[in-house]
Amino acid sequence: MRILGIDPGLQTTGFGVIDADGPRLAYVASGTIKTSGAATGDLPGRLKILFDGIREVTARYQPQCAAVEIVFVNVNPQSTLLLGQARGAAVTALVSADLAVSEYTALQMKKAIVGHGHAKKEQIQAMVQRLLALPGVPGKDASDALGLAIMHAHARVSFEAMGRSTTLQRRQHAIFKGGRTY
Amino acid sequence: MRILGIDPGLQTTGFGVIDADGPRLAYVASGTIKTSGAATGDLPGRLKILFDGIREVTARYQPQCAAVEIVFVNVNPQSTLLLGQARGAAVTALVSADLAVSEYTALQMKKAIVGHGHAKKEQIQAMVQRLLALPGVPGKDASDALGLAIMHAHARVSFEAMGRSTTLQRRQHAIFKGGRTY
Repeated sequence: MRILGIDPGLQTTGFGVIDADGPRLAYVASGTIKTSGAATGDLPGRLKILFDGIREVTARYQPQCAAVEIVFVNVNPQSTLLLGQARGAAVTALVSADLAVSEYTALQMKKAIVGHGHAKKEQIQAMVQRLLALPGVPGKDASDALGLAIMHAHARVSFEAMGRSTTLQRRQHAIFKGGRTY
Repeated sequence: MRILGIDPGLQTTGFGVIDADGPRLAYVASGTIKTSGAATGDLPGRLKILFDGIREVTARYQPQCAAVEIVFVNVNPQSTLLLGQARGAAVTALVSADLAVSEYTALQMKKAIVGHGHAKKEQIQAMVQRLLALPGVPGKDASDALGLAIMHAHARVSFEAMGRSTTLQRRQHAIFKGGRTY
């Protein structure tokens, strides 16, 4: 199963691609899509760069599913509106490529990767490097995206292990869903 | 010049297509895209319906440019985030179809169509019906979208009339840009 993780942002969107074979994980690719090519005020232009960039990643690496970070309300409502539009463009790029999209909060990802929700960026980078046996430390945005892909791989394995108990599986799904805030 | 107006929303997105030949306007089509086909909690599914719906409209009516309403911050930050993502999907659908996207606030549209910014939905509907010589009153969401397309046609005519003075044109552009709030 090839998984694409996406950490959406209006200026920088991180992406990370991994292969998951049960509990075994292998790094495929990671990087960032920057919208600085368009003028700051040109929101449609920036959303186009974001959409085209993600479609390029899905075309090149052919992932079978995607995991996207659930963004939160910012103290600045204007920033919330901008981030929402960037995330909308990112999710749209994924669904328009017919990928199933799972959604996780940064808290869920940090707990899954580092073990607690208050992990710093550097801790996520170090754990992602270790889990994927990378020769170097990946960038911060790419690490978050790889972390989301790893989190999704773990969640999938957990669901499969619980396959015998449909009730439990449903409950677990409900827990993930309950945490959703777009 | 065929213009597509879009009034974005997560539940209902209005669209309106008109032909503008200088000051002469002709109705082509209008309607709404409803995302109620997807479960309320399935945001990726709803954004896909929105994206696919707008791409269907652009493929069928082949507009040459688009005008999208600038959405505002809601009192409920969660609603702001959801509306932002819906607008992101709508704008992404337009730019992915290589359409130039112009953006106007509801206030600008109301002023252009009815003459003042506090116009009620019914007044917009009545004026859109009159300006496009429609046999019946168009729906509320479709009226707003048609209003945006008409507003864009007017703005284009104004810009052309000012074509002799580049300075003035730039200033007018700056006024429109200054009002932007995504």
